[in-house]
Amino acid sequence: MEMDLILIAPIGGIIALLFAIYLFFSVKKKSQGTEKMQELSKAIRKGAMAFLNSEYKVLVVFVTVVAILLFAASTIEDFNMHWGLSVAFIFGAIFSAVAGNIGMKTATMANARTAEGSKSSVSKGLSIAFSSGAVMGLSVVGLGVLGVIGLYYLFNEVILVDEIPNMMTRMNTTANILFGFGFGASSIALFARVGGGIYTKSADVGADLVGKVEAGIPEDDPRNPAVIADQVGDNVGDVAGMGADLFESYVDSIIATMALATIIGALILQINWVEGGVTPVSEFKDITNIIPWFNADNIPSTSTITNYVLLPLLVAGIGIFSSIIGTLMVIVGKGKNVYGALRNSLFLATAVTAVLSSIMIWYLIEKWEPIAAMIGGLFAGIVIGLSTEYFTSEKRKPVQGIADASKTGPATVIIQGLQVGMISTIIPIIAVVIAMIFAYEVSGFYGVALSAVGMLSILGVSLATDCYGPVADNAQGISEMAGMGKEVRERTEQLDAVGNTTAAMGKGFAIGSAAITSLALIFTFIMTAKGLGAEINLTLSDPYLVSGIFIGAMLPFVFAALTMGAVGKAAYSMVEEVRYQFKKFNLLKNDKNKPDYERCVKISTNQALKEMILPSLLAVITPLVVGIVLKPEGLGGLLMGSIATGFLLAVFLANSGGAWDNAKKYIESGNLGGKGSDAHKATVIGDTVGDPCKDTSGPALNILIKLMSIVSLVFLPIILHFH
Amino acid sequence: MEMDLILIAPIGGIIALLFAIYLFFSVKKKSQGTEKMQELSKAIRKGAMAFLNSEYKVLVVFVTVVAILLFAASTIEDFNMHWGLSVAFIFGAIFSAVAGNIGMKTATMANARTAEGSKSSVSKGLSIAFSSGAVMGLSVVGLGVLGVIGLYYLFNEVILVDEIPNMMTRMNTTANILFGFGFGASSIALFARVGGGIYTKSADVGADLVGKVEAGIPEDDPRNPAVIADQVGDNVGDVAGMGADLFESYVDSIIATMALATIIGALILQINWVEGGVTPVSEFKDITNIIPWFNADNIPSTSTITNYVLLPLLVAGIGIFSSIIGTLMVIVGKGKNVYGALRNSLFLATAVTAVLSSIMIWYLIEKWEPIAAMIGGLFAGIVIGLSTEYFTSEKRKPVQGIADASKTGPATVIIQGLQVGMISTIIPIIAVVIAMIFAYEVSGFYGVALSAVGMLSILGVSLATDCYGPVADNAQGISEMAGMGKEVRERTEQLDAVGNTTAAMGKGFAIGSAAITSLALIFTFIMTAKGLGAEINLTLSDPYLVSGIFIGAMLPFVFAALTMGAVGKAAYSMVEEVRYQFKKFNLLKNDKNKPDYERCVKISTNQALKEMILPSLLAVITPLVVGIVLKPEGLGGLLMGSIATGFLLAVFLANSGGAWDNAKKYIESGNLGGKGSDAHKATVIGDTVGDPCKDTSGPALNILIKLMSIVSLVFLPIILHFH
Repeated sequence: MEMDLILIAPIGGIIALLFAIYLFFSVKKKSQGTEKMQELSKAIRKGAMAFLNSEYKVLVVFVTVVAILLFAASTIEDFNMHWGLSVAFIFGAIFSAVAGNIGMKTATMANARTAEGSKSSVSKGLSIAFSSGAVMGLSVVGLGVLGVIGLYYLFNEVILVDEIPNMMTRMNTTANILFGFGFGASSIALFARVGGGIYTKSADVGADLVGKVEAGIPEDDPRNPAVIADQVGDNVGDVAGMGADLFESYVDSIIATMALATIIGALILQINWVEGGVTPVSEFKDITNIIPWFNADNIPSTSTITNYVLLPLLVAGIGIFSSIIGTLMVIVGKGKNVYGALRNSLFLATAVTAVLSSIMIWYLIEKWEPIAAMIGGLFAGIVIGLSTEYFTSEKRKPVQGIADASKTGPATVIIQGLQVGMISTIIPIIAVVIAMIFAYEVSGFYGVALSAVGMLSILGVSLATDCYGPVADNAQGISEMAGMGKEVRERTEQLDAVGNTTAAMGKGFAIGSAAITSLALIFTFIMTAKGLGAEINLTLSDPYLVSGIFIGAMLPFVFAALTMGAVGKAAYSMVEEVRYQFKKFNLLKNDKNKPDYERCVKISTNQALKEMILPSLLAVITPLVVGIVLKPEGLGGLLMGSIATGFLLAVFLANSGGAWDNAKKYIESGNLGGKGSDAHKATVIGDTVGDPCKDTSGPALNILIKLMSIVSLVFLPIILHFH
Repeated sequence: MEMDLILIAPIGGIIALLFAIYLFFSVKKKSQGTEKMQELSKAIRKGAMAFLNSEYKVLVVFVTVVAILLFAASTIEDFNMHWGLSVAFIFGAIFSAVAGNIGMKTATMANARTAEGSKSSVSKGLSIAFSSGAVMGLSVVGLGVLGVIGLYYLFNEVILVDEIPNMMTRMNTTANILFGFGFGASSIALFARVGGGIYTKSADVGADLVGKVEAGIPEDDPRNPAVIADQVGDNVGDVAGMGADLFESYVDSIIATMALATIIGALILQINWVEGGVTPVSEFKDITNIIPWFNADNIPSTSTITNYVLLPLLVAGIGIFSSIIGTLMVIVGKGKNVYGALRNSLFLATAVTAVLSSIMIWYLIEKWEPIAAMIGGLFAGIVIGLSTEYFTSEKRKPVQGIADASKTGPATVIIQGLQVGMISTIIPIIAVVIAMIFAYEVSGFYGVALSAVGMLSILGVSLATDCYGPVADNAQGISEMAGMGKEVRERTEQLDAVGNTTAAMGKGFAIGSAAITSLALIFTFIMTAKGLGAEINLTLSDPYLVSGIFIGAMLPFVFAALTMGAVGKAAYSMVEEVRYQFKKFNLLKNDKNKPDYERCVKISTNQALKEMILPSLLAVITPLVVGIVLKPEGLGGLLMGSIATGFLLAVFLANSGGAWDNAKKYIESGNLGGKGSDAHKATVIGDTVGDPCKDTSGPALNILIKLMSIVSLVFLPIILHFH
């Protein structure tokens, strides 16, 4: 590769971090308003950090144990694993955790400031909230790119140079080590998304059940001891959880693409070597579908292969610059159309990435095919986002249909919502299928992986849009609790409403990217097995593979049930605590007494971490057990089944939940009798059902499918050893 | 085959029909009680027959068109289809329709007689209701076996003898023609299950929404114009629908097994012929997994192959005799434990089938392996039934947990029910996986298909148990409407309660058998393609296959959403009609005016038939489109994806629905505040949500997965022609 060109990636990574730091301080120097506001913001920040710290304590143990196991495995020669895997694993965990920490600090710092900024204008509030979201977005892409490229150079150019003099073999080993980075990122995502998801809904449901339903006090009432835990939950779920989820997708897609390029390089080298320079055409039959134009007549040089290995990093680097441009557009913008501003920044970043990447890729390898594959992925991501918007927006038919069903009571609201969620799976599935087939036809498996990279390339700005949501939500809560007056409340409400829409879109995007990333990983899995010399034939006429598909398809149902159950149990503990505090401090009658917010935060935290153990073990252990009992063929089936059903169930749960939520909001904004009507009550029930669906179980499935894929990749050498 | 032995099958079929006729008349000569009761029973019978007749009108058109298309296709030489396929198709449709008609006539005749019989004792009522169910069960197995064996002999021994002198090739053609029989059965099942499912719930929901909720009159109140439509619905869904569904599974499993045996025979013959008598071992690599002990060293004679072809019919014949024994046990029984009597008859039939089949199979082929495979399937069926019972019985934790969740309102009832449904997928999936792997390990794909035959062999008695349910339900309705007094009502209630449990178990069994039958069909599909000389490689490293899996996995979600939506629309028409009649005839205030029951029946019928068009087209056309656009590989993926998700979603929907239903009944029987309490109201909402899940969308998925498989098999030659 032209070495000057690839520098775009690390430079982009560094600039992303520098810009994130700049935005952090520019947010920090904004006024945070009255003492009351500061106090509330501080309580949320403290709670959020308390959650993260508790989580980290468990994580440190988890990461240490796994790292030791990985290292131990690397000392067993038969297993054919490199010790670098454990190092990369630790780095993956640390980088993801750091990005999440920065994001949470900023988000919980920005809430009062956003409320205060909204005093001047909506666009000022938007600017602050979005800036804080951008800190998260840019930290994730910056650390992701720097982590991958750093480890790549560290191992490929420094550590492994003497150990493996052959460049191609060395690159292959390095790519395998990088799976460890993805695995580390997965571990954090597991805790942040699954644990965080349980946390956020148990706090929410607990606060609502006792506060709104039993005591009859409004939402966000400061007398409710769980109110801070609830606000903390928004950040835990939608900032830390979403960030870690997408950090994982981001690095996984890049790593999968790099790995596929090194695998074809290594295979070609091997064939060349075996045949003493003469390459038999037959041997290429299975290989040409990795990068179609590399075949017996056109054997690439190692430097060409290197270009293909580093290409995804180049795209990621360009995506960072585009994201910064898109981000700036929102921050300096003065318009009043909040949703339009956010959407346009996404479109701008998309366009810039598409154009710049096309030029750079052409300059690098003079091929249009990978460009097409990448743009296909980028486009599919947008389509999935828009489809989610359609099915969950209160301005559209599906949500209004649910609201309409409230005329005949809560049961029809639920049935209608289930239908909407089920039907909403069509567009995302078709979008992913078309992107995959198209990418494959033009550029083989490499193209499929690259389409995932394309979809995620603008993550810097799209994640900023996601993380903006909880900040706006918190700002709204603070303006309510601090009694900031009607005008400000209306502005923060406006910001919050858009945040709900973007959060729904972000969820769709997260699921879609998880699915296509997992597909890239499964193809990498198959090719890696081939690279390791395994004779596995993943055919449907193998009942072991079919069994794997059945079990894999079942896991998302079980995982969703377990996480849903976890919310129920954790929420119950919260209900008990709130009832206890109401009684003990006589909160409802004596205004002077203050509730103990921290205890509620602590309860949610402990319960969430406890309840996530079972589903997590399921995700980590199942691939190993299935790989050993049902052979690698069964494992291949397991991954495929889990990706297909996981994707579908995640879309179904997220969109049903989002649609119920907005059907309630649609009625609250004055339709069909408005707040307090029977119709409203019916939709409140729908919303309550939807909460764990959209904020816990649905998003947790993203983690399940990626984690199982990466675990399978990392442990493949060991699994193959048993067969 | 020992020709005297195979006679067991047609003799069994004839005896089944004779016994069914005997039971029909023995039920008929029972007293049907007071004039009021007779009137009610007559109205239900008239309504049910009106539905069937309307359905048949559409069906005649559908069947004629498809038969003509099939015949036309058979005249195109390139397509390689036999005209016998269209004949078999017509027979399949007619036989299934006749079985359904007999069953419905008997069931709707037995309801008043069951109520009247309950005057003497519970066991008398049970005997009448179960006898009527047995008429359906025995008609289905009798006609199923006679149809398959009749067509087999007609084509193999008569029509094709001159056309195809080579015996092996002839058997292969005959087996292919038999797919037409399965396809015909599928068509009826589509109408009966999907159309019937929409009918039953739209009538139920429509009747309840206006009657119970708006007008405040009790369930089964004769003033409600939709009350007869509701009673008709029970028969349409659970007698005609269930019967047609299982008729299809029954014949499909037998046909798939026969086809696999002929395919291996034909392949062996072909290899022998190609190599001039010397069989190369390598060619056998892909074939030995059909019947593992047939290989290069052990080439079976054609008469041995014939034994394997006819073996599933033998098992079916034995199953009929065992079913009759099991049936008699209930009918002549005098015990008061209704559930115990039904369960024990199933266990007895299972044991008798297992023992007799083992002896016969051993006598025929002297192999224990197919015996083991068959018994594995039989056992898996029992396990799935018991698992369903566990998750939906009000005596067990899952349902009581849902009831308990009603303390915190309807939302938690819904969430808890969703969880129960999701978790309940584990046992059925694992049972099918174990049965499949075990059958495959001992007897190859032939064993897998035989395990499906085993599972369905006792259908005669298990279907009797299913069809007993709606008769008991109707008897309960009639005793209510005719004011038969408390004692009789309590007895019919007891019969009805057990009917709910057996209905839930029957649903689980129907789903499980649909899944394993579909698996047998998909393996047959793969082997048939091989038999047709197609070079298709169904590997996960083919993105077309993966796309097929994704789309296939999506279809059950879409199908479920469409059928759920259809219920909503049809119910809405019913609501309008009931409101209109209440007003027009002043029904609530003037006791002399009578509602127009027939109009309600007509509305439900027309709506159901209209609303089933879209989902039906989806099921029939998708395999053809996918097969052509995404190649046969994509079609293979489609089938696999749809079976996996369809199975899961069907279990999930059926068990969630069943659990909600019984959680309501649990509270109604006096727990947690009993009828009228807030807890009860919350569970009523859960029950309403569950109704379309368990009675429409869930069961409809059985049809989807089998229909798509059989359509793919029938049209495979055409699809291959396009590639």
